[in-house]
Amino acid sequence: MRIIGIDPGIAIMGYGVIDDNGGKFKVLEYGAITTPVGTEKSLRLKDVYDGVKLLIERYKPDVMAIEELFFNKNAKTVITIGEARGVAILAAVNCGIKVFEYTPLQVKQSVVGYGRAEKKQVQNMVKAILRLEEIPKPDDVADALAVALCHSNSNILNAKLGSLK
Amino acid sequence: MRIIGIDPGIAIMGYGVIDDNGGKFKVLEYGAITTPVGTEKSLRLKDVYDGVKLLIERYKPDVMAIEELFFNKNAKTVITIGEARGVAILAAVNCGIKVFEYTPLQVKQSVVGYGRAEKKQVQNMVKAILRLEEIPKPDDVADALAVALCHSNSNILNAKLGSLK
Repeated sequence: MRIIGIDPGIAIMGYGVIDDNGGKFKVLEYGAITTPVGTEKSLRLKDVYDGVKLLIERYKPDVMAIEELFFNKNAKTVITIGEARGVAILAAVNCGIKVFEYTPLQVKQSVVGYGRAEKKQVQNMVKAILRLEEIPKPDDVADALAVALCHSNSNILNAKLGSLK
Repeated sequence: MRIIGIDPGIAIMGYGVIDDNGGKFKVLEYGAITTPVGTEKSLRLKDVYDGVKLLIERYKPDVMAIEELFFNKNAKTVITIGEARGVAILAAVNCGIKVFEYTPLQVKQSVVGYGRAEKKQVQNMVKAILRLEEIPKPDDVADALAVALCHSNSNILNAKLGSLK
């Protein structure tokens, strides 16, 4: 299964594309779609949408895994991230792929095994699990890979639970 | 100038299309794009995007005026409205029209002349200014027409200020 992980944002939208072959991972690409601060917001949203769509068309992932928002950020930020998130989700559905959402708690629990893990711990686990030479930068990229891994783990778990039925 | 006003939401997205011929208004259409509660959010966002895009293609407005969010709603609601807002803005930019955002305060100030006006006062003014037979329902539709009027007023004001230069 191929997963595109997304850490949503309008200035920096982190992404990571991984293949999961029964728990064996291969990283295809990771990086960030960035949009310039001075530009009109509507054009930035279009850049994000076009960028995500292009990635999906290029790598043809089976699913998108996207991080849910922290609720404790300031309201203005939450709204803007919501808008960026909306267009990323739209890119997925317009390309015909399913979207799964995970809270930061679920991501940490899944990747580190502890819901209150520090950011650094998550990043180190991402690096270790995906056998990367270094922690991807900026943080949004590591977060995008983490949410992709989280989806993969929850899928393995569901398969195991399924086989117990 | 033709304006499409949008009051963003995922369950109910209010819209109103008006022509402003130098302060003489003509209402072309108003209503709401609604999406069913039980449906997956990604599909609801697609419905909103497709619906707004269709309206723009049909009525060919020159601009979109969209209401900014209240910051005091609960965080979960703010995020979802943000997502719906993002795809509505994307529909506009993908159709090549400009987007203008107004806060509820600006809308009230512009339509009623008083930033802390009650919802009912705004609705009555929308009905009066646009010479409608009744207040459009649900509230989201009246709000969409109000934000369109707000853009029109701010445009008239800008033109007047321009002529004073």
